[in-house]
Amino acid sequence: MSRFLSDNVSGAHPEIVQALLEANEQNSAPYGDDPYSDALDQIFSEFFGTPVSVIPCLSGTAANALAISLVAGATQSVYVHQDSHIYQDECNAPEFYSCARLIPFTDVDSIGSAKLTQEMFKAIEGRKGDRHSVQAAAISIAQINELGELYQPDEIRALADYAHGQGLKLHMDGARFANAVAALDCHPADISWRSGVDILSFGATKNGCFGAEAVVLFNPQQKQEAKYRAKRAGQLVSKMRFVSAQLLAYIKNDLWIRNARVANLAAEKLAKQLSQFTDIKAETPKANMLYVTLPAFMTTVLNKAELSGYFEEVENNLYSMRLCTSWDTRDEDIEVFIKTLQAAVLDNN
Amino acid sequence: MSRFLSDNVSGAHPEIVQALLEANEQNSAPYGDDPYSDALDQIFSEFFGTPVSVIPCLSGTAANALAISLVAGATQSVYVHQDSHIYQDECNAPEFYSCARLIPFTDVDSIGSAKLTQEMFKAIEGRKGDRHSVQAAAISIAQINELGELYQPDEIRALADYAHGQGLKLHMDGARFANAVAALDCHPADISWRSGVDILSFGATKNGCFGAEAVVLFNPQQKQEAKYRAKRAGQLVSKMRFVSAQLLAYIKNDLWIRNARVANLAAEKLAKQLSQFTDIKAETPKANMLYVTLPAFMTTVLNKAELSGYFEEVENNLYSMRLCTSWDTRDEDIEVFIKTLQAAVLDNN
Amino acid sequence: MSRFLSDNVSGAHPEIVQALLEANEQNSAPYGDDPYSDALDQIFSEFFGTPVSVIPCLSGTAANALAISLVAGATQSVYVHQDSHIYQDECNAPEFYSCARLIPFTDVDSIGSAKLTQEMFKAIEGRKGDRHSVQAAAISIAQINELGELYQPDEIRALADYAHGQGLKLHMDGARFANAVAALDCHPADISWRSGVDILSFGATKNGCFGAEAVVLFNPQQKQEAKYRAKRAGQLVSKMRFVSAQLLAYIKNDLWIRNARVANLAAEKLAKQLSQFTDIKAETPKANMLYVTLPAFMTTVLNKAELSGYFEEVENNLYSMRLCTSWDTRDEDIEVFIKTLQAAVLDNN
Amino acid sequence: MSRFLSDNVSGAHPEIVQALLEANEQNSAPYGDDPYSDALDQIFSEFFGTPVSVIPCLSGTAANALAISLVAGATQSVYVHQDSHIYQDECNAPEFYSCARLIPFTDVDSIGSAKLTQEMFKAIEGRKGDRHSVQAAAISIAQINELGELYQPDEIRALADYAHGQGLKLHMDGARFANAVAALDCHPADISWRSGVDILSFGATKNGCFGAEAVVLFNPQQKQEAKYRAKRAGQLVSKMRFVSAQLLAYIKNDLWIRNARVANLAAEKLAKQLSQFTDIKAETPKANMLYVTLPAFMTTVLNKAELSGYFEEVENNLYSMRLCTSWDTRDEDIEVFIKTLQAAVLDNN
Repeated sequence: MSRFLSDNVSGAHPEIVQALLEANEQNSAPYGDDPYSDALDQIFSEFFGTPVSVIPCLSGTAANALAISLVAGATQSVYVHQDSHIYQDECNAPEFYSCARLIPFTDVDSIGSAKLTQEMFKAIEGRKGDRHSVQAAAISIAQINELGELYQPDEIRALADYAHGQGLKLHMDGARFANAVAALDCHPADISWRSGVDILSFGATKNGCFGAEAVVLFNPQQKQEAKYRAKRAGQLVSKMRFVSAQLLAYIKNDLWIRNARVANLAAEKLAKQLSQFTDIKAETPKANMLYVTLPAFMTTVLNKAELSGYFEEVENNLYSMRLCTSWDTRDEDIEVFIKTLQAAVLDNN
Repeated sequence: MSRFLSDNVSGAHPEIVQALLEANEQNSAPYGDDPYSDALDQIFSEFFGTPVSVIPCLSGTAANALAISLVAGATQSVYVHQDSHIYQDECNAPEFYSCARLIPFTDVDSIGSAKLTQEMFKAIEGRKGDRHSVQAAAISIAQINELGELYQPDEIRALADYAHGQGLKLHMDGARFANAVAALDCHPADISWRSGVDILSFGATKNGCFGAEAVVLFNPQQKQEAKYRAKRAGQLVSKMRFVSAQLLAYIKNDLWIRNARVANLAAEKLAKQLSQFTDIKAETPKANMLYVTLPAFMTTVLNKAELSGYFEEVENNLYSMRLCTSWDTRDEDIEVFIKTLQAAVLDNN
Repeated sequence: MSRFLSDNVSGAHPEIVQALLEANEQNSAPYGDDPYSDALDQIFSEFFGTPVSVIPCLSGTAANALAISLVAGATQSVYVHQDSHIYQDECNAPEFYSCARLIPFTDVDSIGSAKLTQEMFKAIEGRKGDRHSVQAAAISIAQINELGELYQPDEIRALADYAHGQGLKLHMDGARFANAVAALDCHPADISWRSGVDILSFGATKNGCFGAEAVVLFNPQQKQEAKYRAKRAGQLVSKMRFVSAQLLAYIKNDLWIRNARVANLAAEKLAKQLSQFTDIKAETPKANMLYVTLPAFMTTVLNKAELSGYFEEVENNLYSMRLCTSWDTRDEDIEVFIKTLQAAVLDNN
Repeated sequence: MSRFLSDNVSGAHPEIVQALLEANEQNSAPYGDDPYSDALDQIFSEFFGTPVSVIPCLSGTAANALAISLVAGATQSVYVHQDSHIYQDECNAPEFYSCARLIPFTDVDSIGSAKLTQEMFKAIEGRKGDRHSVQAAAISIAQINELGELYQPDEIRALADYAHGQGLKLHMDGARFANAVAALDCHPADISWRSGVDILSFGATKNGCFGAEAVVLFNPQQKQEAKYRAKRAGQLVSKMRFVSAQLLAYIKNDLWIRNARVANLAAEKLAKQLSQFTDIKAETPKANMLYVTLPAFMTTVLNKAELSGYFEEVENNLYSMRLCTSWDTRDEDIEVFIKTLQAAVLDNN
């Protein structure tokens, strides 16, 4: 299994393991009425520097879908990028949970970045008040996004200001939120509520947990509705303490940012090493994900060596490949990858 | 936290812990494309003695709702007992996943047992072909059920035969399936497919896992649809191996039945000890759940000592209390419980 | 076709026909942007003596379902009588439109009347704040109801006061609202907003239209959401003027109450005539619907003569039959019915 | 009200009026159990030359949404053109009825025609078997479509062959089906089942009815499911005979094609007359809808004279305007339109 396929291939960090084992040492009330779950709101409020409510979730899909259901309903829509994970890879979960429509948007400027642009605003306003169309209720962005790109705080602010001016909410898919904070070297607040984000899907699984995600409500009054929605969606587990304990350990002692920094640094190293190959075109990674274009023979070799990321042919004999680094990527992993490519080049000449 | 509140208060069994740690030793492909998840169908097919497909789920709610969505759709209904967990305690999840209606049924014979009776058949047939009503598509029962009762194999068979004769499916909520098998001292097949069950919610969390449930499809051809439905519902987690590894360890080396036997035996011991109290009326438990009626003063004392189960006042000064035992209930736990009651009696006289 | 099967067997009243033909004399803007539709809010506000908004609908099912979707959502429930039309005969439409659950209620006092009683309040409060259960959001009653019964204004008031005290809304299924007003000889306001009804399904089809129903919003601010929901549900027709013109003509010149009085009077006459038969047990009708019990031989004869209403065997050889009168029921119709029964009695002796 | 705004501005044809009045002469069983509704399947089967089942609907939105719900479900998708009415103007109704996603498609070749091209096939196949994405279940096209364009029978055939080869169904939105048949001078079968269409939304309202649409099932076995779905959606009206009677009269004596020919011919005449204006660019209409580009001053004048169609600014001072003709468009109507433009030109010079 390629270590660069996804950060999801990594397991849980020892501190998370430890937290789980400790939570298993004594009995606890079920369905979230346990001390770990009780502590979440407080700990996350401190983390974000503002009062928040937290709904633990079991999957990123569920966190995204639940969050969307809290900002858009049956007669409404959510604007997303055409290439966004939430539109392309959630198998209709956001629509299922919310009854809203996701409206995919793209323009020439956003091809290759999957970042929403102000061009979208025309589309939103074009149907305002038109009874034949669902009405825009929210905009959803990913940070870092599906193509490894970052939104700067002021870019988020601009989207949020527009959204709020139109009566819309701004959702952020933060499956790799920690990597974004590490990359921007900012406070978690800077790219969330302080930039106008109303609701956040907070990912922890990829960055060192067994399985723990959360919806963070910057409007804590939504908690009541959110709790029932989570239960109805099958996201209230009986032994919730084991999810909450992971989330607490993830925040405690800065594990989240330590892990994210390791992953981001590994991506940087990998990109640097890749620059030695004239056949490979690799952009400097923004966080822990990089997209490279490489010739067919390299793709074949990497694939055979179980080292490739997700790839697709972009033109004849040329492939685009996504490479992800993780909290447990080691220098040796990069070394093996590079040596495999070096050998492939030799063989190919 | 009372050990008798629920079997959900117990943590994970050491063998489950071990399996999780082992699964964490190496990287693995995400989203269920891992060796643990790949093995599920085979292992469960051996377990049940017939080819099955397995969809891992994160919560019992999700397993029930997903299962219901595979046997009933938007223009259909599922008949359930008025007091069933699936009707009373899933916050509309089965309706959400399936778009079907759950129709609650009760009659005088089933009050106090929550077991469906043949009286229900009239209700089902009364609306057959009536365009103004959703059409019956399934019957759902729990084994053991919400009141700790058991369906004998021939009772299941009778419901299944009727259901199949009417073109309906039979779903079983097996949140405590292992306890039922242990209590009946039968093969898992005897109270599932061999008795006509079409689809089973298979619980493992209560009986010794951190968090692992499954939908077992006795018609493996439903797997394709089930997989997409699970993903759409947010039940496909990225590090699925950690769920699947629990399920495998739960089946392996008979952990499931060993744990269930401990729990059932504990309930029996508890009931026996309770028989010394003239004030307490306790039925012989069928598996690991017993309902007792006891006077107010006892309820108060147990509650204060954090030893009570869920209770409600049934008549003046008389309470009904549910007590659950678990895979980790020890003789000392029962002893403490009994001594607390003995002291309460002394104090009360 | 038996005239007594339902008031739906009657066609449209000449004044409705005339209104339709007039509306057809000139072109008009589509999708409700026509003068007829524009006038609805004003005319209905005058009718009810309070500002209302009106959403025309094409079927009673749609009016009920749309209304329910405006008072209850995905994590909520609506309490209804077990025998109510909205629960038994709408094929899940209210659940479909609203995502809420309808919770059927009955108690010994309400069998035979289908009227909700205060017993229901316990059920509502029992799950308040319980995360495992949908939360009560509304109560729905029918006026006149499915068994031909009437709620007195103070009975509605009591339900409304309770509902509002709990933060719930009160919905009224007024498929035969005009018959209720005629029977109570009151103002339309007396059994709607003035008694605390929040939202009303207003029926006109049965009482003399081709096809015209409406949701009346006593909180006019719901109009925006209601309009989009109606469109999404397929209830916004392109030539809406033909629906709205019927509703206007129905209100104008008191057609609604004139028609309802004819129907109610016919039911009274029918009941009086039926009292001559010792074999028949008929209660005094409250409005235009009466339930009679009669022996099998009478049911057979009526059925053969195409004069029967909906019937079912209640005990051996004894049938319960619903008889409906309508705006176009004539004395001759009653005469034929009675003579048929007289002949049946002679034949039977 | 401009006669050219939409064919929906026209009222009902005298033959439809007559049919409605006749249906009103006698009582009839409710909810579609009447002779008119009973005759639909037979009459439409003759009309199409193949056995079909017919579900009457009250709106085009409902017909489209119901049809979609019969070809795609919760884990599936329907491919449609980005500019299609079904995607842009149904306020989520198809998603609501079906739980499926509509996937909007466009490419450079289809801009300006809104016709689906084979480019779409790549998008469909790209997600086949990918669990993270809903799976394609159907393709939906409109005939004539939103931009007044026609699919030739062989174009439909090509889409159908592809769809069927992939296990997909082909839906046709036939809101203006009659205009398409008239334009192509073909048999209704030629552009429906004989070209591979599986299910058709059959419009009659625009072309001379008060309000009557239908879903035509070329697989009559879907009727059972369709009936319950229609009821659940609020599309089963109590006095269904008045809808069915319109549909019968619409088919009888070729009213449908007579009306469509009048409308199409009027569009042709209008386009011809418009060719005299050098400022106006008008394409030859394919059926009864034409899109013209015209300068701002003309748009203003037409708007003031209540003669304009829907319009939008396409570039500075240049407007695109849709003009629709109808079964009751008269030569005088065209004359008034042209004279208004001629006067505008004079004024402008």
